[in-house]
Amino acid sequence: MSSGAAGPIAQTDFVGGLITYVTCGDSRSQHGAAVHLYAINQSMKNRVFYDADGELLVVPWEGELTFVTEFGRLAVAPGEIGLIPRGVKFRVDIAGPGARGYVCENYGAPFRLPELGPIGSNGLANPRDLLAPVAAFEDVEAETEIVAKFGGHLWSARVAHSPLDVVAWHGNYYPFKYDLARFNAINTVSFDHVDPSIFTVLTSVSDTKGVANVDFVIFPPRWTVADHTFRPPYFHRNVMSEFMGLVKGAYDAKKEGFLPGGASLHNAMSSHGPDEPSYQKAVDAKLAPQYMDDTLAFMFETRYIFEPTAYALNRAELDKEYDGVWAGFRKAKVPGKK
Amino acid sequence: MSSGAAGPIAQTDFVGGLITYVTCGDSRSQHGAAVHLYAINQSMKNRVFYDADGELLVVPWEGELTFVTEFGRLAVAPGEIGLIPRGVKFRVDIAGPGARGYVCENYGAPFRLPELGPIGSNGLANPRDLLAPVAAFEDVEAETEIVAKFGGHLWSARVAHSPLDVVAWHGNYYPFKYDLARFNAINTVSFDHVDPSIFTVLTSVSDTKGVANVDFVIFPPRWTVADHTFRPPYFHRNVMSEFMGLVKGAYDAKKEGFLPGGASLHNAMSSHGPDEPSYQKAVDAKLAPQYMDDTLAFMFETRYIFEPTAYALNRAELDKEYDGVWAGFRKAKVPGKK
Amino acid sequence: MSSGAAGPIAQTDFVGGLITYVTCGDSRSQHGAAVHLYAINQSMKNRVFYDADGELLVVPWEGELTFVTEFGRLAVAPGEIGLIPRGVKFRVDIAGPGARGYVCENYGAPFRLPELGPIGSNGLANPRDLLAPVAAFEDVEAETEIVAKFGGHLWSARVAHSPLDVVAWHGNYYPFKYDLARFNAINTVSFDHVDPSIFTVLTSVSDTKGVANVDFVIFPPRWTVADHTFRPPYFHRNVMSEFMGLVKGAYDAKKEGFLPGGASLHNAMSSHGPDEPSYQKAVDAKLAPQYMDDTLAFMFETRYIFEPTAYALNRAELDKEYDGVWAGFRKAKVPGKK
Amino acid sequence: MSSGAAGPIAQTDFVGGLITYVTCGDSRSQHGAAVHLYAINQSMKNRVFYDADGELLVVPWEGELTFVTEFGRLAVAPGEIGLIPRGVKFRVDIAGPGARGYVCENYGAPFRLPELGPIGSNGLANPRDLLAPVAAFEDVEAETEIVAKFGGHLWSARVAHSPLDVVAWHGNYYPFKYDLARFNAINTVSFDHVDPSIFTVLTSVSDTKGVANVDFVIFPPRWTVADHTFRPPYFHRNVMSEFMGLVKGAYDAKKEGFLPGGASLHNAMSSHGPDEPSYQKAVDAKLAPQYMDDTLAFMFETRYIFEPTAYALNRAELDKEYDGVWAGFRKAKVPGKK
Amino acid sequence: MSSGAAGPIAQTDFVGGLITYVTCGDSRSQHGAAVHLYAINQSMKNRVFYDADGELLVVPWEGELTFVTEFGRLAVAPGEIGLIPRGVKFRVDIAGPGARGYVCENYGAPFRLPELGPIGSNGLANPRDLLAPVAAFEDVEAETEIVAKFGGHLWSARVAHSPLDVVAWHGNYYPFKYDLARFNAINTVSFDHVDPSIFTVLTSVSDTKGVANVDFVIFPPRWTVADHTFRPPYFHRNVMSEFMGLVKGAYDAKKEGFLPGGASLHNAMSSHGPDEPSYQKAVDAKLAPQYMDDTLAFMFETRYIFEPTAYALNRAELDKEYDGVWAGFRKAKVPGKK
Amino acid sequence: MSSGAAGPIAQTDFVGGLITYVTCGDSRSQHGAAVHLYAINQSMKNRVFYDADGELLVVPWEGELTFVTEFGRLAVAPGEIGLIPRGVKFRVDIAGPGARGYVCENYGAPFRLPELGPIGSNGLANPRDLLAPVAAFEDVEAETEIVAKFGGHLWSARVAHSPLDVVAWHGNYYPFKYDLARFNAINTVSFDHVDPSIFTVLTSVSDTKGVANVDFVIFPPRWTVADHTFRPPYFHRNVMSEFMGLVKGAYDAKKEGFLPGGASLHNAMSSHGPDEPSYQKAVDAKLAPQYMDDTLAFMFETRYIFEPTAYALNRAELDKEYDGVWAGFRKAKVPGKK
Repeated sequence: MSSGAAGPIAQTDFVGGLITYVTCGDSRSQHGAAVHLYAINQSMKNRVFYDADGELLVVPWEGELTFVTEFGRLAVAPGEIGLIPRGVKFRVDIAGPGARGYVCENYGAPFRLPELGPIGSNGLANPRDLLAPVAAFEDVEAETEIVAKFGGHLWSARVAHSPLDVVAWHGNYYPFKYDLARFNAINTVSFDHVDPSIFTVLTSVSDTKGVANVDFVIFPPRWTVADHTFRPPYFHRNVMSEFMGLVKGAYDAKKEGFLPGGASLHNAMSSHGPDEPSYQKAVDAKLAPQYMDDTLAFMFETRYIFEPTAYALNRAELDKEYDGVWAGFRKAKVPGKK
Repeated sequence: MSSGAAGPIAQTDFVGGLITYVTCGDSRSQHGAAVHLYAINQSMKNRVFYDADGELLVVPWEGELTFVTEFGRLAVAPGEIGLIPRGVKFRVDIAGPGARGYVCENYGAPFRLPELGPIGSNGLANPRDLLAPVAAFEDVEAETEIVAKFGGHLWSARVAHSPLDVVAWHGNYYPFKYDLARFNAINTVSFDHVDPSIFTVLTSVSDTKGVANVDFVIFPPRWTVADHTFRPPYFHRNVMSEFMGLVKGAYDAKKEGFLPGGASLHNAMSSHGPDEPSYQKAVDAKLAPQYMDDTLAFMFETRYIFEPTAYALNRAELDKEYDGVWAGFRKAKVPGKK
Repeated sequence: MSSGAAGPIAQTDFVGGLITYVTCGDSRSQHGAAVHLYAINQSMKNRVFYDADGELLVVPWEGELTFVTEFGRLAVAPGEIGLIPRGVKFRVDIAGPGARGYVCENYGAPFRLPELGPIGSNGLANPRDLLAPVAAFEDVEAETEIVAKFGGHLWSARVAHSPLDVVAWHGNYYPFKYDLARFNAINTVSFDHVDPSIFTVLTSVSDTKGVANVDFVIFPPRWTVADHTFRPPYFHRNVMSEFMGLVKGAYDAKKEGFLPGGASLHNAMSSHGPDEPSYQKAVDAKLAPQYMDDTLAFMFETRYIFEPTAYALNRAELDKEYDGVWAGFRKAKVPGKK
Repeated sequence: MSSGAAGPIAQTDFVGGLITYVTCGDSRSQHGAAVHLYAINQSMKNRVFYDADGELLVVPWEGELTFVTEFGRLAVAPGEIGLIPRGVKFRVDIAGPGARGYVCENYGAPFRLPELGPIGSNGLANPRDLLAPVAAFEDVEAETEIVAKFGGHLWSARVAHSPLDVVAWHGNYYPFKYDLARFNAINTVSFDHVDPSIFTVLTSVSDTKGVANVDFVIFPPRWTVADHTFRPPYFHRNVMSEFMGLVKGAYDAKKEGFLPGGASLHNAMSSHGPDEPSYQKAVDAKLAPQYMDDTLAFMFETRYIFEPTAYALNRAELDKEYDGVWAGFRKAKVPGKK
Repeated sequence: MSSGAAGPIAQTDFVGGLITYVTCGDSRSQHGAAVHLYAINQSMKNRVFYDADGELLVVPWEGELTFVTEFGRLAVAPGEIGLIPRGVKFRVDIAGPGARGYVCENYGAPFRLPELGPIGSNGLANPRDLLAPVAAFEDVEAETEIVAKFGGHLWSARVAHSPLDVVAWHGNYYPFKYDLARFNAINTVSFDHVDPSIFTVLTSVSDTKGVANVDFVIFPPRWTVADHTFRPPYFHRNVMSEFMGLVKGAYDAKKEGFLPGGASLHNAMSSHGPDEPSYQKAVDAKLAPQYMDDTLAFMFETRYIFEPTAYALNRAELDKEYDGVWAGFRKAKVPGKK
Repeated sequence: MSSGAAGPIAQTDFVGGLITYVTCGDSRSQHGAAVHLYAINQSMKNRVFYDADGELLVVPWEGELTFVTEFGRLAVAPGEIGLIPRGVKFRVDIAGPGARGYVCENYGAPFRLPELGPIGSNGLANPRDLLAPVAAFEDVEAETEIVAKFGGHLWSARVAHSPLDVVAWHGNYYPFKYDLARFNAINTVSFDHVDPSIFTVLTSVSDTKGVANVDFVIFPPRWTVADHTFRPPYFHRNVMSEFMGLVKGAYDAKKEGFLPGGASLHNAMSSHGPDEPSYQKAVDAKLAPQYMDDTLAFMFETRYIFEPTAYALNRAELDKEYDGVWAGFRKAKVPGKK
């Protein structure tokens, strides 16, 4: 986990390839989260990692990762997510030339499926689609580095064998994967734009009911059918901070300038909404059922302010003209005024 | 409120025209509900009514009712609902030749909007669409009968003036009306049939979290878009008892034999599902977005067993061949079996 | 505990002298309460009593009672209350010629001090004023009758010794007494009539937050200072049923016809308020601080309907003209109307 | 919002005139609060402000403020309070030559009315007296500065028009005002000094039940009638920290040296109580009902320690002899000791 | 399910062989439970049963039962328990000549594992030992009787095939079995007799925290090591009613007169404790670790009063001298008394 | 309370002799705790102390302490614990030549007895064994220093008399002591190693249910009887951080190198378990009931990471080879592998 002095280089594995972009809260007081991006080109060799500060929610957008864990193996491809609980040791193998993706390191309450409320017994992500690994182990007598994130720092120790030698396990604290294509998207079938909370896959609750420590929310392929409605996300500001990423396709509120692997940040109470072309297209559209295909955007959304790292602020890729997309809006006519 | 010895006759007002069809629970221990049907042809004259045992949720399907209450006037037409809180005095006026509808007398916790869970801040019935009356009063010095339902019985007293003489009020305990066309229906926009709880308009919670005393659920006009899905209500049985009515149009799980003003009852753990023709039509259908128009069915759904009154069981209209609709289903082929 | 066929007679002890006046709920399902009145003229001799159906809250208005219990002795005089938990054995001794009072038999959650909310850490009845008995026992080898109320019936058994032979005890399930003069009455010191819940001494909560199984509420001597206010209890009806009694003096909403040992009942949603003379006096009064002395009324207030026993309804003392006190009110002038 | 280097000067508007005196907690972790004082002499011109870190509770003691907000206009005069929710844009206009007051910037849960407990359905601040603005907007095409407090810093941006151009709104997240004279003060009407929590106007709850993030508590005009009681606030220390201010008149525990616009701070577990003259006067007083007129003190009370800013500690007005008021108390006689 | 007019006869299957002994509460209001005993000698043939009123907890003491359910097959032998959820269809097969046991029909909240409190993450019955059936079905075209218990009555219908034809299932509402030998018994390892709640296997919570609708509690083989302690259950009475049965061996508070298949009932507030010989043996014992082997008693314990059926009260086996076991206790010496 | 620059010296009283070893959380945000060790050789003279930041849980292992408090006197000897609430003034007297022990300064919710869950009404530490002081005061007119810990710093003030002059008190906020020998230890009486939470004496809950701010857990003398079980604490890592101390005897997972007055720290997610000799002894043992005598270890266990002070890390006594105890474990044979 680099402190951000330089980007990933020649031979980079998962631990070496993680770069922190934004953080909020504090792992020592167990609230908030960090968002890291990774770009790697080799498997972890003779080293394993665990994070004592939080769990890791991994969202790949390029290249499949195989998490070899104390509990067994999980292969996680783009379109899927993997979750490694706090303190669980693992290494990451890749099969192809490289892999890139997003990681949310959650310092707060473990992610779980949201309460469904009136949605009832089934819907959104169904429990049966969260896949735990079959127990598996390796019996390797080779010097192995254990890298631990503990108290915000990385620590290293060496042991004479692989610690991924756990033969069996039981309980309810284990890594899992989930295929986002199995998400049962629910939304209005009449009118109005519904809060994006309706697309919550996993939530880390805070001690305050109603405001999450972090929500993981997706915008998957789905039917959009609302009548009498401006269909894209409306202009708004709110108490939550939104870190947005893209796994594939395009996002309906920002047709240009947002690519897989990219990220945008709208912090608490900062106004935002669709760009002018998206707005104009939505206003002009004749409303009929439309299947939004080939899209998979997501948000890590938190009650706290996400603060960018110096690395993130100094990247050449930083879009310094981001708010230009809202230029060009014309004032609505005030009735009765010329 | 008739005990059911005979149906409504020549000159029948709202109090006289209520006939009890099913009940559950017990008003004295403040759980459960009753469902009454009314068929009336005159306004209440020189009498007012209040129900000390529960609140009244009125669902008209024919003819507009005007509730003249201590808080003001509410006109409730088919497609709308009216709610009179426990203990509030009112009379019912009608303008046309007659009026018919359903009434749920709720003995338990007052109906309120459900918690929305992941649906967020808006959706289903929005609070701003529940309309309270503007304060209004009448100053009438005429002998007036006050009919009260108290402890399961009707009581009558006479006073020398109309008690609907309350000049002003404040607080949050008042009658209201709601136009069901303003319900923001939410449902799957991907696949699977969602629990009908997603169509909850109002809920009376019980002391046990997760099982309602009574839910008022509607099946309004809406888009249906689920792919890879048997779209009608699936075959099921559950712990809740379902009293179903119809305001207009047809219900998608029972195309024949269910008319506005009719009612069906599926009690706890009794299996049910679409009739065979509805089933076959759904199985054969090519799935595409479809707007379900001209339909407004609803359920009063309770954790308790609804028990029909003798009146209900002895009506000539009782459908004694009801379960015949499930005849004709052919067994599915067991794979590999001849 | 008489079923009410006749009033107390010549030689009557506490168990024999209890007459049931009203009940609500059901001891077998552990909600509701009964109210009994007692009029006795001798101590219990060679018999003890326990109530397996509920606890007993005793409110004497004439004559001191001594409860000789398994935990020790409690002397309870008019102006005080005694509470015997469910299942605790006791006998009642009297010193003088007779004793009379009220008993609330609570089938629901045990009475406890109410949560104080914004009142803070002290106020109303303070915990330190609830007095438990010092352990005491008797060593009596004489045939003793044990009378038990169990499942709504009285049962009798005989043993060869007094069961009040418990030598020591610990824990938090014990009888106690409380001197109502130690109640720190709290009320408005500016304007408006506050809900009588502010005078709650003990509450038996129900499973539904906000509606009590039974509240024990008193109207003790206190300052009344509200400006710009109609000071007596206002005209109202509500979801709670009110059984009212009087320990001494007069009650400010009913100056005539309500004496110590008497009782009134205002059930759920039945309108009531001060009688016309009390109303007129209050309207005409010049408002200044006034100390309401020599008064001690109380209510047993429940969410359920109190149903009078046949005995209560057939007593000669029943006031059949009770609602006559509200005759004579003149209609208020409607502004602008002649 | 000045960092405190200097006091308000010649031409100072609301944003420029806010000076921070004490803080606790941390806006980034959303607990605690800050207290600012303002002294201003001009309206905000071509600039608007919003606070992304917390809501603002404004308590003026001199000069009326008009909050021109996205939701409409609120005029708040001394004796009233105004509340601007987190993130809401507004400017402040003044009509007279100047205005001064207190501001609590609340980082925690939004202020709301306290649960009333046994006080019942009405009392303290009644919901109907919280006044929301009527929707109003301005259509001004002039360069406008938007000042935002975000993450503990002030940020500035410029747009070409007034953002106070919102034409209509709905929902329950809006600014409001409240006239403290409408507070229904409740207190003992028998004996003892009640906790000041009984004067809570608004509370910001923390995640720990029973200890508030911040309470806003007032000491309004009211009757004081307690018998057998030392009536002023008694000598105490507690877990809460108390920042006290004065809108008008005098405070009954500190007759001298505490003027409108002044402030005192008693932090957690620091002992305090009435000064010696107030004590002696209370001890010598003959107890009779007394109306405490012409007084309006208040507290911002928090579970955390309020830490003064360097500015506050270096003001010439700082009272360095504050604890001298408790000199002069004589030891009470120990009974039996000479 | 017989109403008890006669005992089981010649050819009796599970439905025919159930005899009701005690009941409490009311299935229609969904609280309380019934206890049935069964004695059967044949499998259910061409009929299936479901209970719409409650779930069935089956405790066999003689003969293995095989529950053929919609979810698959469960073989439950003495020493194990089986649970059939409310509404699930099943038939019972037996392999041997006969089978006998106890059934608790629970009208309230479904049985679940208790919260463990300080016991931590493991202990008592561990979740992994609750065994669900593997999906299995039968494809039988033969007239089958479906017997349903609904609303306190038995109803019968006939269909042309076995309804146990469910091919697959998912979810968390399924029958399960549990081997009581896998219960991790926890108890004092120092002194004092611990409440039997520490042996809770399954609990049906009521709406009142702290008082269960029904608890299923066992007294399994275990070490008993308490020093300075009277080890058998002490003399007590309590608010819970205890129905006790025996699967095998002897119960340590009643050495004589309590056999497998027997039952005792100690209702709320009825005093009980060890019989005199058990008492004397315990008092005389030299305390050392002792393994209590060959014993498996259990209790169905409820907050309500268990009422015996007429059948139960009229059985010849009824022990009319039951309380004779407490004769013979000698009074303890009062210190200082001769 | 020294900042750790040097150890206790020649004449050292309780305040001077406290040395901080580990901390977590933050007193200003009221979560976490610190652990101090003290080694003192004189009584506090003319000075008293109070801690405004947290309560003090004192665990002596050598020498009795007498806490002279505002509430009275508490003598606390090794084997007992004392608790001084936040803000309470006291001084510490010693009778002998010296005293040493551990102190947990708890910044979070006050310690209280844990909820017992299925353990029932009695067990673990019983409320009646928490001993409050009898009111006592001193009347000393001598200059006295008051030392306060407030906001993480020590502050000093001087007054002309002892502040321990409180003559009487009431309420539920008082110091107490507890004799750990009165702890009713509960544990498995069948098999498996139970979580140490079962030995919780006192708990400081956090706002997140299930994870404590601090637990005080002891390992007292007790029977150990588990069959088929590896009896010492198993190898594990968890989300809690464990600070362990020893009052007397030896700890069963570390036979060597852990003495009274010593301390070990296993932070969150750091693996640990018995040392190799303890492991081997346990594996080889023939299991029979064994009384673990002469031992009293304890843990302060927290959800947060305990961070050692520089003082603690630089002590010569620091065991730099601590993890050597886990060397020497041999790999278990994988079945079927040579």
